[in-house]
Amino acid sequence: MAGSDVKLLGGWPSPFVMRPRIALNIKSVDYEFLEEKFGVKSPLLLQSNPVYKKIPVMIHGDKPICESLIIVQYIDDVWSSGPSILPSDPYDRAIARFWATYIDDKFFPSLSGIAKGKNEEERKAAIEQVIAGLGLLEEAFEKCSKGKGFFGGERIGYVDIALGCYLGWIRVTEKMNGMKMLDEAKVPGLAGWADRFCSDSAVKEVMPETEKLAEFAKLIFSAMAKGSFPTPAN
Amino acid sequence: MAGSDVKLLGGWPSPFVMRPRIALNIKSVDYEFLEEKFGVKSPLLLQSNPVYKKIPVMIHGDKPICESLIIVQYIDDVWSSGPSILPSDPYDRAIARFWATYIDDKFFPSLSGIAKGKNEEERKAAIEQVIAGLGLLEEAFEKCSKGKGFFGGERIGYVDIALGCYLGWIRVTEKMNGMKMLDEAKVPGLAGWADRFCSDSAVKEVMPETEKLAEFAKLIFSAMAKGSFPTPAN
Repeated sequence: MAGSDVKLLGGWPSPFVMRPRIALNIKSVDYEFLEEKFGVKSPLLLQSNPVYKKIPVMIHGDKPICESLIIVQYIDDVWSSGPSILPSDPYDRAIARFWATYIDDKFFPSLSGIAKGKNEEERKAAIEQVIAGLGLLEEAFEKCSKGKGFFGGERIGYVDIALGCYLGWIRVTEKMNGMKMLDEAKVPGLAGWADRFCSDSAVKEVMPETEKLAEFAKLIFSAMAKGSFPTPAN
Repeated sequence: MAGSDVKLLGGWPSPFVMRPRIALNIKSVDYEFLEEKFGVKSPLLLQSNPVYKKIPVMIHGDKPICESLIIVQYIDDVWSSGPSILPSDPYDRAIARFWATYIDDKFFPSLSGIAKGKNEEERKAAIEQVIAGLGLLEEAFEKCSKGKGFFGGERIGYVDIALGCYLGWIRVTEKMNGMKMLDEAKVPGLAGWADRFCSDSAVKEVMPETEKLAEFAKLIFSAMAKGSFPTPAN
């Protein structure tokens, strides 16, 4: 079996772990999911990712690969058993990498900044940043999707995976703050995209239910309030 | 001519701008270098990189590409007029991406932390981080180079470009702090690699002289001391 020698070290609530899971599903690669206990690092994790000591780590045969977006690119490079994840055109590929980098370097810090905010003012500023970021991503969606359903066109691609993995946490943040960030009136492209993404067969089984994630969020936000923000993944 | 439709918006002191310049040299692609004035952003820059408004931006035909490592990957994808920059093996490619990401996400903040340090203690902590980082990179060099001269093997590759672009700034930092970070006794692999890298024909003409860079550094460190750290590039 193509994927029988693939192990993925991860945790169900981690958006970063969701990325290689979706990529492996797209390529129909079977893998063993080794769930790391939250707050504990297994010897296999420490040995496989000595630099960051973070999930996800994918082990292919005996070779560990770290960093979620690097793993996704590796999966795309190795398996041709499913559609390509990165665009085939070099310029489209550069644009996809640009937005994936933006999502991790700018969008995610704003999103997590809402929960990390020490007071109302900081939280408000973070929410504004997220909304501005979604505005930019709405424009990017219009350009990249070329009138089709996903950033990747007709199918889920690299930017879809990069951004889509945060949808669970966006919904939890909306719920906890009694607000709508993926507002159909403001970001109609992204609002429709989010629904399509979550109901895609490669995503459904790995996207956590909002209720369950919200329960988990309460636990970690309470830890954060005590100043011990756990960073479960990279 | 293959590269006559390539423009690069940059500035000579920027390590990030050096990356696409080296990649273009490796591929023997001619390009027009449009020097941005320090502290001023040209209309072309603002229009080409509206998200970050930072150099480098490469414009190929009428298409702008931003973010130095994304540009390097694009150059490698588009031009086969020179040796490959990324390794051809998918696992080696993942490892190269891992170290390039480490260099930007961890190593560079430590290096710039030396100059940004508000007091002796902060500067010392940053120097220790840089030295620890160089220790990790020495191990990476041993593994990646497989006994040859560069991270990329016999020739300059992706990690060489990612790390090598900081060599000018490492030398300036050494000079300003009266210390040796690329110490032959501690990181013999990297010390030899640094000399080979700087004398490579693709690098020589774009690596700034330490004296000239030190003069520039004095200007920006003085601005930093006043709390206005200029970030000339991404």
